[in-house]
Amino acid sequence: MALVKPSVPKGTRDFSPAEMVKRNYIFDTIKSVFRKYGYQQIETPTMENSSTLMGKYGEEGDKLIFRILNSGDYLAKVTPEQLAARNSQLTAQISEKALRYDLTVPFARYVVQHQNEITFPFKRFQVQPVWRADRPQKGRYREFYQCDADVVGSDSLLNEAEFILIYDEALSRLGLQDFTIKINNRKILSGIAEIIGKPELIVDMTVAIDKLDKIGLDGVVAELLTKGFTQADIDQLEPVILLQGSNVEKLDQLKAILASSATGLKGIEELETIFTYLQSFTLQKATVELDITLARGLNYYTGAIFEVKTNEALMGSIGGGGRYDDLTGMFGLKGLTGAGISFGADRIYDVLEELKLFPAASNQTTQVLISTFDKEGEVFALPLLQQLRNANINVELYPAGAKIKKQFDYANNKNIPYVVVIGSDEVQSGQLTFKNMQTGDQQKLSQTDIVNLLSNQ
Amino acid sequence: MALVKPSVPKGTRDFSPAEMVKRNYIFDTIKSVFRKYGYQQIETPTMENSSTLMGKYGEEGDKLIFRILNSGDYLAKVTPEQLAARNSQLTAQISEKALRYDLTVPFARYVVQHQNEITFPFKRFQVQPVWRADRPQKGRYREFYQCDADVVGSDSLLNEAEFILIYDEALSRLGLQDFTIKINNRKILSGIAEIIGKPELIVDMTVAIDKLDKIGLDGVVAELLTKGFTQADIDQLEPVILLQGSNVEKLDQLKAILASSATGLKGIEELETIFTYLQSFTLQKATVELDITLARGLNYYTGAIFEVKTNEALMGSIGGGGRYDDLTGMFGLKGLTGAGISFGADRIYDVLEELKLFPAASNQTTQVLISTFDKEGEVFALPLLQQLRNANINVELYPAGAKIKKQFDYANNKNIPYVVVIGSDEVQSGQLTFKNMQTGDQQKLSQTDIVNLLSNQ
Repeated sequence: MALVKPSVPKGTRDFSPAEMVKRNYIFDTIKSVFRKYGYQQIETPTMENSSTLMGKYGEEGDKLIFRILNSGDYLAKVTPEQLAARNSQLTAQISEKALRYDLTVPFARYVVQHQNEITFPFKRFQVQPVWRADRPQKGRYREFYQCDADVVGSDSLLNEAEFILIYDEALSRLGLQDFTIKINNRKILSGIAEIIGKPELIVDMTVAIDKLDKIGLDGVVAELLTKGFTQADIDQLEPVILLQGSNVEKLDQLKAILASSATGLKGIEELETIFTYLQSFTLQKATVELDITLARGLNYYTGAIFEVKTNEALMGSIGGGGRYDDLTGMFGLKGLTGAGISFGADRIYDVLEELKLFPAASNQTTQVLISTFDKEGEVFALPLLQQLRNANINVELYPAGAKIKKQFDYANNKNIPYVVVIGSDEVQSGQLTFKNMQTGDQQKLSQTDIVNLLSNQ
Repeated sequence: MALVKPSVPKGTRDFSPAEMVKRNYIFDTIKSVFRKYGYQQIETPTMENSSTLMGKYGEEGDKLIFRILNSGDYLAKVTPEQLAARNSQLTAQISEKALRYDLTVPFARYVVQHQNEITFPFKRFQVQPVWRADRPQKGRYREFYQCDADVVGSDSLLNEAEFILIYDEALSRLGLQDFTIKINNRKILSGIAEIIGKPELIVDMTVAIDKLDKIGLDGVVAELLTKGFTQADIDQLEPVILLQGSNVEKLDQLKAILASSATGLKGIEELETIFTYLQSFTLQKATVELDITLARGLNYYTGAIFEVKTNEALMGSIGGGGRYDDLTGMFGLKGLTGAGISFGADRIYDVLEELKLFPAASNQTTQVLISTFDKEGEVFALPLLQQLRNANINVELYPAGAKIKKQFDYANNKNIPYVVVIGSDEVQSGQLTFKNMQTGDQQKLSQTDIVNLLSNQ
């Protein structure tokens, strides 16, 4: 019987050992920065009740949720009529659970469910996979990790300032040299729509000006005209879109433009407070830029909006977030304000790969391979194996002596930097061949020398 | 509208920050030991094609696999007749993917799929959740993490010896003082069935003697009699079941008993080799015990069998594994021998909790909270916040000054060991109140003193 070569479902991925080392490097770095700022890890189940997820992501989102067939005889209670109807009630009847679509809704569910155990402000981070029945394409997967930090129950703008510090520290630690954290405020966008006299068109306005980078000013104007804005509106809007200068200069200009909008002025004040906080801290590599065209997730955010872009590689945003005022309202807990950010791990992976920023060495890999060729060599090698492990060095003894080329290939393929070769000469003299696999250099060393040398790496 | 309080599906769990710290402690410890012995991490997708999983776990297992409803219009290609049939073909038609049921079958699929990229022997570990539609009960969940290490492509018994070292090192590091790694060999069990003259009854035999601890010798004998063994068979079997003495003494007695069984003698030789390897190493806390009644997963293992029990708490096995000869055969790659072990993370968690072995301190939590009460205190605190973070200390500033009791409660609930209090006195004098939350002691210290004190913790 010819067997079909096994595969994974489309849009999903296996991660090889080499990929895992790199992914862990990214996640461990981000997690340790989250912790440094007081964020605590939680995990929620892969499956949620369908009722928890459905209706939270809009009609399009609902369609992208993977549903789990009820276990056992899932059709037992379904009547022939219900079955023949082939409708969404049938789907709800045979699948009561679904796979997590993002980390935000499960977090809101968690906060409401555990509200009596939680000490607010609650600063949580979460790094888990999510699933979306999107059409797979380059860089878009059906299973991918999200990496979120959120604080709920605090309206202090120090949280926003610290999110900027978290982005700065995490991405700088990962080796990025030049990246921009763009910031805007939903209230400023509301203020702009207000002073133009078209508050009801705020979504169309922001969707259009968000495209300035891609379609240029003429494109934005053309789009605005089709959406119900007049030339007079656009004349008012144009200087706002094209604001130039430092963040302070931009804010000064905005203050004049939005003088008659209380909401707009509140947004400016919030940004000023965040910038004032930042003056007490030294940013490592990040540039913070007020970008009035930034409109990320507008229906959701109510205050600050963030987006992070690297200036070293051609890549979409590698992070984003903002403040929202009613995350837990969907589960009946009103009035809990929050703010959050997210890192785009897959994109960061691609950027680090392109810029060759992954460190060559890792404590996640084997440090030294011991090569032997016969039983005598193996017996001789065992005490060295124990000594190296006592010194907490990651070490392997190649089992059941193969040819030396095969053992060296093994070391090279696993990216093992050193090999100790123990042939009959070495057993007799006690001087072992210690080979650096990167340079090809080799020297004769005693067991003690080898242990000391590797311990001090 | 009254909202139903949200909940998680039965058999699944949220993990709180405090639980995550403990779970990470267990997983990080085990992972670092796996790495120390040359095992490399992989991850496989949560969803596998149903064809990869179905038929691999027996009829009962198949029923426990969670299946995923095809996305989009999953009934579009189903005819009315197919729908009305309500049979397993319908299920296969509407759900082409399923959730991972264990880590072993996905690993086998991985090895076969990536065989041309893998350097053998391939030592991999994997720590990921699995899903089973079991009836939930105390200690049994529908979503739980497995924690496996396997090597394929090496028949060296050094691998088995190293699995014992891995158990010893990981569990000793976790603080266990007294645990037993039981070992047996499938070939010895075959040899016993052979010399009794009932090789075809090996499964019934081992299932019965496996219960010796629970039902005693009389119970085992009664069960054997119902399964087709004669009193004469049992007279032969009894001394084997009741073997006493050290591992060497047991092996010596077995050598005499199994003298006429080539398979049995091979099993003894394998165990002797493993014990010989172990003589070159110093075990930390583990006792290794040859247990002839150990029969774990008999249809699967072909050589050594392991099981780990703690002697400090009443608890089922906290680990197990063995050698298998044809893991990848199910996907068409024959002749690849392997061996593997697994840690029972949930049970280890319960044992550490019961024995109070979780460390009090963790670098995963906030080290110090800065308490302020007004804008003046906050402004004064910001440079300290930056200094502490520069020294890589996990620190939080309680946002938007609340009452001191609330801030202390926050520190206590998050298990934060130190609080720096900055009131107006402190701002004036520059001497800050530094409070140890465990002892209640407090002293006045300068910013520099505080940074130095916490840096040297």
